[in-house]
Amino acid sequence: MSEFVNIEITHTEDNARAGVLHTAHGDCLTPMFMPVGTQATVKGVTPRDLKELGSMMILSNTYHLYLRPSDELIARRGGLHKFMNWSGPILTDSGGFQVFSLSEMRKIDEDGVTFRSHRDGSKHRFTPEKSIQIQHNLGADVIMCFDECADPNDYAYNVRAMNRTHKWAERSVREHEKRCAKPVHGHLPSLFGIVQGGIFQDLREKSAQFITALDLPGYAIGGLAVGETKMQMHQVLDWMHPALPQHKPRYLMGVGEPVDLINGVRRGVDMFDCVLPTRLARHGAAFTRDGRINMRNIKFAEDETPIDPGCTCYACQNFTKAYVRHLLHVEEMLGLILMSLHNLHFLLNEMREIRAAILAQRFTAYADEFVARYTGQGTAA
Amino acid sequence: MSEFVNIEITHTEDNARAGVLHTAHGDCLTPMFMPVGTQATVKGVTPRDLKELGSMMILSNTYHLYLRPSDELIARRGGLHKFMNWSGPILTDSGGFQVFSLSEMRKIDEDGVTFRSHRDGSKHRFTPEKSIQIQHNLGADVIMCFDECADPNDYAYNVRAMNRTHKWAERSVREHEKRCAKPVHGHLPSLFGIVQGGIFQDLREKSAQFITALDLPGYAIGGLAVGETKMQMHQVLDWMHPALPQHKPRYLMGVGEPVDLINGVRRGVDMFDCVLPTRLARHGAAFTRDGRINMRNIKFAEDETPIDPGCTCYACQNFTKAYVRHLLHVEEMLGLILMSLHNLHFLLNEMREIRAAILAQRFTAYADEFVARYTGQGTAA
Repeated sequence: MSEFVNIEITHTEDNARAGVLHTAHGDCLTPMFMPVGTQATVKGVTPRDLKELGSMMILSNTYHLYLRPSDELIARRGGLHKFMNWSGPILTDSGGFQVFSLSEMRKIDEDGVTFRSHRDGSKHRFTPEKSIQIQHNLGADVIMCFDECADPNDYAYNVRAMNRTHKWAERSVREHEKRCAKPVHGHLPSLFGIVQGGIFQDLREKSAQFITALDLPGYAIGGLAVGETKMQMHQVLDWMHPALPQHKPRYLMGVGEPVDLINGVRRGVDMFDCVLPTRLARHGAAFTRDGRINMRNIKFAEDETPIDPGCTCYACQNFTKAYVRHLLHVEEMLGLILMSLHNLHFLLNEMREIRAAILAQRFTAYADEFVARYTGQGTAA
Repeated sequence: MSEFVNIEITHTEDNARAGVLHTAHGDCLTPMFMPVGTQATVKGVTPRDLKELGSMMILSNTYHLYLRPSDELIARRGGLHKFMNWSGPILTDSGGFQVFSLSEMRKIDEDGVTFRSHRDGSKHRFTPEKSIQIQHNLGADVIMCFDECADPNDYAYNVRAMNRTHKWAERSVREHEKRCAKPVHGHLPSLFGIVQGGIFQDLREKSAQFITALDLPGYAIGGLAVGETKMQMHQVLDWMHPALPQHKPRYLMGVGEPVDLINGVRRGVDMFDCVLPTRLARHGAAFTRDGRINMRNIKFAEDETPIDPGCTCYACQNFTKAYVRHLLHVEEMLGLILMSLHNLHFLLNEMREIRAAILAQRFTAYADEFVARYTGQGTAA
């Protein structure tokens, strides 16, 4: 199978890794955080600003794009890169997580999932084959196997979900190989596998063994940040480090808390994605070096300092807390735009600092200092 | 009275004028369109983008800023320029128009207007003195006399409103002079008068005579684009041309239809403002050379052309109708951002073209061609 995406690990410090991920749409410096553009746009941010922020790869959602405007329309328009005018690398998820999140509105069987649209209740069906077909139509650089994300604490459910995920991974691979023989766009997507198994060591190790045996160009750790404790998340990552091949990228799905990024990198993760920065922005919450703040707070009404003093983003270089607080208070779009730019910058900049620290062999010190300051407590786990 | 704002008319073609408006925050090339930043932000546009669009002067609303975050807060924060980080010229309206638009929620007497906030029903009172005090606190380059805008077709009401407007103009001037002796900010605002009188020639001429006798640095034509016909609007402007001094700026308030701008310039107007470009954007309507289009229309779902082929704005240079239509359809913020950028660019660019045409003595030809194409009909009135 011709696979373009591959990682070159250039530096390590303990389990932390720094490298370069090569894709058909350019190189990404890792570890990296991927902003999420659910509906073919990162909410509130122009592609121009996204580039200026230093975004490398972005993520988009198969479930949403399948519903609107449809993967066929995007394929006819030349694929997702062209449609949204983003020339950098893109990753699409499999649609699995979104479909399972519909809870009452979906029904799982061994073959796939039948669900109703969250918009209009219309009936649809995803199978591993369908998910891969949609993702080939979208034409991302990295696409994901269709998987089932279970309640991380339910052992019996995790056994069932994991076995289904494994069968679906095999079917995803077969469909992907078939589609690669007749490419929709000018480049071939690379298919990543997803390890499941909740918080259970035996299941996680079994899943890693099964999925890595498929010999895919990259592996994701799924089913985390969905209800387990931080300590449990760290445990799973610790089990994964020796279980995943060193020379392939590891992607921790749906994680974007500043401290979680640190703790993920500590445990060998190369890639992260999360809607958190833009979602928090819409709720008026901003990341700062000293932790999260609620920018709607009345105490900022006359505050002349930027959101995060020392931050180099457009919002912090040009506007005061007093102004941003006013914009949020009167529900002006510019408030959401500035908050989104700031929060995305915060995580992207954090990843740049992490990478620089690994290159300089001072990541552990950087990580401890970052976590201590962010949490206002001692050093990190 | 020390007044900084003044206009230099450098070129004319029939009644059309081109020149330079000098202000404490820089020069503006006229005729010009002023984007409206009601709540200290032009909706959906960063100050950086606003500058890139070529905006010269922007307008902000006294009524809204008085309510939130309050003019006192903005004064403490160093004035509106600093608060919103806009270093170019700003004009504030008097709050009169907004207050009168509250209809059932306001009561007019000879001294002023008592009204309830459209947000929370709280009770407030504006008088000419109060309006000028607020505007001095905000610290715009151009501020406006407190006036009453009547139904343009009601003669008896227009007589009353005009007389009140004249008394209020005198009180505005007195209060302004008093405040100029103790400036709030480092520069002095310039006070413009407003001519009222509905669609009635005798009232308009009487009003122009009264207001110009106050010898203010600029004059606005109020009470238009509020219910009269286009022909009536043109008539009023034709009466105003000889009634207003040639060497002072003329500002047609609240007008921003592409064809109305042409017809205003034809009749000697130098300045325009309107919420139309950003309001239309939020409703999915875009200006194009060939008239207004509804960008939500299904017929654009697979259209590979930009919103307005030939347009040089960021939206048109980078995105297809198909993509913008998708963004509007799924209610993504980027859709509003791109539409706002495009519509603002359209009017700002139109004014640049108008000015270049006057300089080249080919404005009449330009105007006729623009209107014929925009309306899809013959030549303009």
